Amino acid sequence: MCGVGGSGGRDLGLLFSERPCGAAAVFTRNAFKGAPLGVTREAVERGGLRAVVVNSGNANAATGARGVEDAYAMQGAAGEALGVEAERVAVASTGVIGEHLPMGRVVSGIRDAAQKLSRDGTPFAEAILTTDTRTKEAAVQIEVGEKTVTVGGTAKGSGMIHPNMGTMLAFLTTDAAVEPECLRETLSRATDRSFNRVTVDGDTSPSDMALLLANGAAGNEPLTTGSADYPAFAEAVEAVSQTLAKEIARDGEGATRLVEVVVEGGESEEVAAALAKSVVGSSLVKAAVFGEDANWGRVLTAMGYAGVPFDPDGLELWFGPVKVFEGAPVPHETAEANAALASGEVRITARLGAGEASATAWGCDLSYEYVRINGSYRT
Amino acid sequence: MCGVGGSGGRDLGLLFSERPCGAAAVFTRNAFKGAPLGVTREAVERGGLRAVVVNSGNANAATGARGVEDAYAMQGAAGEALGVEAERVAVASTGVIGEHLPMGRVVSGIRDAAQKLSRDGTPFAEAILTTDTRTKEAAVQIEVGEKTVTVGGTAKGSGMIHPNMGTMLAFLTTDAAVEPECLRETLSRATDRSFNRVTVDGDTSPSDMALLLANGAAGNEPLTTGSADYPAFAEAVEAVSQTLAKEIARDGEGATRLVEVVVEGGESEEVAAALAKSVVGSSLVKAAVFGEDANWGRVLTAMGYAGVPFDPDGLELWFGPVKVFEGAPVPHETAEANAALASGEVRITARLGAGEASATAWGCDLSYEYVRINGSYRT
Repeated sequence: MCGVGGSGGRDLGLLFSERPCGAAAVFTRNAFKGAPLGVTREAVERGGLRAVVVNSGNANAATGARGVEDAYAMQGAAGEALGVEAERVAVASTGVIGEHLPMGRVVSGIRDAAQKLSRDGTPFAEAILTTDTRTKEAAVQIEVGEKTVTVGGTAKGSGMIHPNMGTMLAFLTTDAAVEPECLRETLSRATDRSFNRVTVDGDTSPSDMALLLANGAAGNEPLTTGSADYPAFAEAVEAVSQTLAKEIARDGEGATRLVEVVVEGGESEEVAAALAKSVVGSSLVKAAVFGEDANWGRVLTAMGYAGVPFDPDGLELWFGPVKVFEGAPVPHETAEANAALASGEVRITARLGAGEASATAWGCDLSYEYVRINGSYRT
Repeated sequence: MCGVGGSGGRDLGLLFSERPCGAAAVFTRNAFKGAPLGVTREAVERGGLRAVVVNSGNANAATGARGVEDAYAMQGAAGEALGVEAERVAVASTGVIGEHLPMGRVVSGIRDAAQKLSRDGTPFAEAILTTDTRTKEAAVQIEVGEKTVTVGGTAKGSGMIHPNMGTMLAFLTTDAAVEPECLRETLSRATDRSFNRVTVDGDTSPSDMALLLANGAAGNEPLTTGSADYPAFAEAVEAVSQTLAKEIARDGEGATRLVEVVVEGGESEEVAAALAKSVVGSSLVKAAVFGEDANWGRVLTAMGYAGVPFDPDGLELWFGPVKVFEGAPVPHETAEANAALASGEVRITARLGAGEASATAWGCDLSYEYVRINGSYRT
């Protein structure tokens, strides 16, 4: 990806940039934070990142002081193997919580990966997966000041996914030159409209982060939020983030369907987003979608406990194209509403009549397979 | 129950008091509220309640203006059948959301039930069930000013149960005489420590309520919060409520185990309760309990996203008698920790080291059966 190389074994991935990168990061809000997060936060604040090292299988979280040492040791090993300063390396871990990293294997994995760097992002995308069933990658190209700029990204995550960063890792890269403050604002907004709108099971993990690296190889004038081409850049980052977010929802543990909930006519984007997220997060809605049962009362119920103000009497609700509620039940063919739940992509739309703001959230259905995966994850 | 008679068919129950009752009620905080709730709120504010009428199978929620008319019609039919003023009757409905009540069947059910009043509470306890697999009843006797006072109760609820009243109906009765303000305070505190500490699936229903009726038949001096015997009375109401709450958790949809989470050493009961509720509400914790997998990292994770402040480094954690964490992983036999999840009652204990406050929350595991029940509830 334009001066960014990657590599990966089955459970260890390296991302490498030929040039120092501006960096922005968003971290989990869980009170428990995995050890790598503090190490990466320092590196991002320092700036000039050259690499990211990621392992899957072990989250290095709830591992005490030894976990922090291990995270620094990963950083050091990656720096040495790649010939860059250790403090220019971001670190991420995902997997089981509460076990110490097998550092011998991790370090030899880092050395192997450093020998195999290439411009193909797929080995890296594969290395970061845990219970995911497929890789998630996306890229967009735009023109910035007559230079072609690429925004690419890869992510992992399929369970413990929830608003505010649930076991999710997302690595976005661009060859655009971007001013630091602008980079932070771009990632923050894109995350709010993508990864923070995905929920699989309502759990928020200690390990999650989204990282945006910009190495300037495209040669454009550094972007600020005031640049003429900034809206196109922000949109590109948001598009890549949303594509990855939808892929995460679609690949939710045990998921058989992607569920997209659109709330329109809200007084603010925050209210619309809170309502949409509450619906995609409801176990009862998710089970009903799995059962292809258009039990729209559960959608109203989930909106009702979202904790934001709205007028139930002014609400309209659709399952696919079938209107089911408008302040009171709307007579409709149950079979048609059920059919709207039978496809691989289910859309539920609510209109509030309170304003112009809208928001979309993504989730998946709740299946027997989710229970099987999570009843026996460690065994 | 001491001047309180009950009766019930398969889906309609009546509770009747020979004397007017002081009444207190707690209602769902869902923005969508079932039509009966407004009718019952009026009746409780008016006081002097004589009866409660409850149907199961249909929640009369999201039913617009016609739903409100139907709730008043239920109230009127019960008053007429029992020979009391309609406005002295509380109304509750539970079941499918968004369908109109079959009023012909409801009214004839009320008339049948009024012919069958008895002092046996079980037919009423049976009539209010939906997906519950068994009735929930509890009673305690105490001495109040040399009079024997009984506090009894029955409840329904097995899915869509969550802090802040999720599809749960609880009817508590006592023959004690209790001042109105004292009655309200007693129910409010007992509810906070029982029904609001139960979660099955995180959904909060539009229909839920807890009702406490006190008819004074015991002949005691009316209780106030300052009475010498008040603590014993409050404790009796709390004990009945907690017994019912635990029965609700144990009978969670598809549950194979009761999960009790105790948080000790908190700076306040509110913080301890928030942490305990977050753990019992986590889908990942629930699936791990179902799988008898002592994946304690998920417990830490759920505490971490509870949204209340605490010090992760000062935390100790036990699965049954097995200590698994104390600021860092505690070496232990995984088989022993797993075994603590294998009994019908699972206890997880966390100690914070921040103060003296403690709180307990109850839930259940997440099984294949939950998915089956909720994938096909209406069909």
